Amino acid sequence: MIKINENFLDLQDSYLFSTIAKKVAKFQEEYPDKKVIKLGIGDVTLPLANACVEAMKKAADDLSKKESFMGYGPEQGYDFLREKIVEVDFKSRGIDIEKDEIFVSDGAKCDTGNIVDIFAKNNKVAITDPVYPVYLDTNTMSGRSGKFNSKTGKYENIIYMPCTSENNFEPSFPSEVPDMIYLCLPNNPTGTVLTKEQLAKWVEYAKKNKSIILFDSAYEAFITDPNVPHSIYEIEGAKEVAIEFRSFSKTAGFTGVRCGYTVIPKALKGYTESGEEVTLNKLWNRRQCTKFNGASYITQRGAEAIYTEEGRKQIKENITYYQENAKIIRTGLQEVGFTVYGGVNAPYIWLKLPNGVKSWDFFDKLLNEVAVVGTPGVGFGPSGEGYFRLTAFGSKENTIEAMERIKKINV
Amino acid sequence: MIKINENFLDLQDSYLFSTIAKKVAKFQEEYPDKKVIKLGIGDVTLPLANACVEAMKKAADDLSKKESFMGYGPEQGYDFLREKIVEVDFKSRGIDIEKDEIFVSDGAKCDTGNIVDIFAKNNKVAITDPVYPVYLDTNTMSGRSGKFNSKTGKYENIIYMPCTSENNFEPSFPSEVPDMIYLCLPNNPTGTVLTKEQLAKWVEYAKKNKSIILFDSAYEAFITDPNVPHSIYEIEGAKEVAIEFRSFSKTAGFTGVRCGYTVIPKALKGYTESGEEVTLNKLWNRRQCTKFNGASYITQRGAEAIYTEEGRKQIKENITYYQENAKIIRTGLQEVGFTVYGGVNAPYIWLKLPNGVKSWDFFDKLLNEVAVVGTPGVGFGPSGEGYFRLTAFGSKENTIEAMERIKKINV
Repeated sequence: MIKINENFLDLQDSYLFSTIAKKVAKFQEEYPDKKVIKLGIGDVTLPLANACVEAMKKAADDLSKKESFMGYGPEQGYDFLREKIVEVDFKSRGIDIEKDEIFVSDGAKCDTGNIVDIFAKNNKVAITDPVYPVYLDTNTMSGRSGKFNSKTGKYENIIYMPCTSENNFEPSFPSEVPDMIYLCLPNNPTGTVLTKEQLAKWVEYAKKNKSIILFDSAYEAFITDPNVPHSIYEIEGAKEVAIEFRSFSKTAGFTGVRCGYTVIPKALKGYTESGEEVTLNKLWNRRQCTKFNGASYITQRGAEAIYTEEGRKQIKENITYYQENAKIIRTGLQEVGFTVYGGVNAPYIWLKLPNGVKSWDFFDKLLNEVAVVGTPGVGFGPSGEGYFRLTAFGSKENTIEAMERIKKINV
Repeated sequence: MIKINENFLDLQDSYLFSTIAKKVAKFQEEYPDKKVIKLGIGDVTLPLANACVEAMKKAADDLSKKESFMGYGPEQGYDFLREKIVEVDFKSRGIDIEKDEIFVSDGAKCDTGNIVDIFAKNNKVAITDPVYPVYLDTNTMSGRSGKFNSKTGKYENIIYMPCTSENNFEPSFPSEVPDMIYLCLPNNPTGTVLTKEQLAKWVEYAKKNKSIILFDSAYEAFITDPNVPHSIYEIEGAKEVAIEFRSFSKTAGFTGVRCGYTVIPKALKGYTESGEEVTLNKLWNRRQCTKFNGASYITQRGAEAIYTEEGRKQIKENITYYQENAKIIRTGLQEVGFTVYGGVNAPYIWLKLPNGVKSWDFFDKLLNEVAVVGTPGVGFGPSGEGYFRLTAFGSKENTIEAMERIKKINV
């Protein structure tokens, strides 16, 4: 009899985005003439940089000719891309990462999800609260979270690190020591960043406890503060405690093109139950060679173009555009007295609701009174209650108009 | 302390293709003037159909304009592609598969590997011997294979179904009933196919035992015999017992483009330990929505073009080219007295070595005497010993020359 992985039954259905979609649809049905402005979704809207488009068209042409046709590529990614990554993303920041420590993939969501494959089931997992749901759900699927407690809104075996205005959204070291620590910085959804000094404490903590940090830096392109690290490897000793996930989705508008990469330094070790050291780079390599067949050749040529002078210039323009939107949202909200976090080194603005207003109530108010859509903070975890997320990925015109509209509401 | 998934330590390093590469490199170093012909690798060599290339270039252009830009796509694949798949691959064969039973991905290797996520660890797995290594290795990683016995060349918890000339490469029902049964038809590496009547017995067997058949039909485009099913769903009742994996890699030369799909009918159930039914389509959907972000938009537009009239014509030409190569190899080998299997409904030719010659000895002989490279059968499992695989994916000229050369050797 074929038995299912019953851990899947412990997953909580995420009604967040489907509930949002339903509410918006109902509103539009009632008021078909009202123009709804959506600042809820974390997806880019600007077209791809021309350098990337041209590179992908050329790559498609390569495949049309016998002499330049490319079949199966290396599971780890083509050297032409891995070399550029090493050079531009690391060497230029004084970080010594080698080519074979880079694993190119079809995106950071896949990598942050699939990484659980190489770890034992009995590792204790710590996540921030609120959090990007993939870290939590993939650990539930693989049996690390235990049962969900609907009273607390938490899984019994997960260590939640609350991030609220009380601790300035900086997670504290948990009382129980975790084996796996997920950190997303700049943070989705709160927009928080840590300075080098703050992050160094986490590296030290992980080193002391032989824990691993799963560092998601999908939003590093939005960093403006020079004291905020773009890579965890800017911190001394991080190569011995951290895996880093990188994405071209927000950096270069690749959400539909699908490309990212994962860094697993060869110095990084895991342990067997009996305490033997095992190189994680080798384990991940085996995982990828067995369950993955490399990212598309065309995609990788597109990603390579991000690293050309022209590509970098075009991408910078797009990032600047979104950064300006973030500023418009931040200042717009502050002008009417909201307490606002994020939006400086991140495309996410995390809004603290006044007077104990609940996330979903604010969502309804915003939609019904001024036809603006955001994301209720509680959708990202229990500590997100009373907060609200807006994103900088809309058009400038819509962003300005949304702020004008929000100014009219009374909370 | 971060603990690793120790099942990874039970994996056997596959030295097959690396050993081949080393031997070939050594030979070329010794004889730099000799032209080595490689008929070992299962990768395509003909360029992509022009219809696919043009569709992908157009898709890249779509991403360059704000009006047609595409961000995150549906994790299950775009409707434009899923609808074509339903229509052409299933409806046209009288099979009733619905759009939401199709999950488009970045390739069949990923899907056949990742599918283990949704099943319990204590399922008993059956594989054919010889076998495509991914089925075995992914079950080892997820803890279903137990320890490797180096004397038998087998894992203690895996049910091996020997496929040799004695049973005409048709696996027999194992004495111990498996929960998960991997069938690759047309088969890699043996080139075997089963008729509808033969496959219907497996469907019946699975139904009787509440087992699941994981049906890999990556090579269905090579089928010429009208009584050989292209899809397991041509068999009555298969929707209740089988998941089907499809690939555009060999059908349309997409090995470097990366696209395939998995069919999970809604009628297909798994069970909890307590015997409760669970819809596998829903589990896989949850898995993909959590750990995957959809195949590249550009890739999916390329795959869509496979289903146009022009695309189908161009692809058919490529398949015909490889089929002619297969025929050249088959007849060439038969002329000199070899016993040959496969190569009619499959791109693989499976050669039985005479006089008890071992797979690796024949490899060495072929390389050293006539500079032709194939794959030793024993590399695919213990029952592959004494066999040898040649592939039809080379150029016609090289294939003809390889046969001329092979005629010169004495085995």
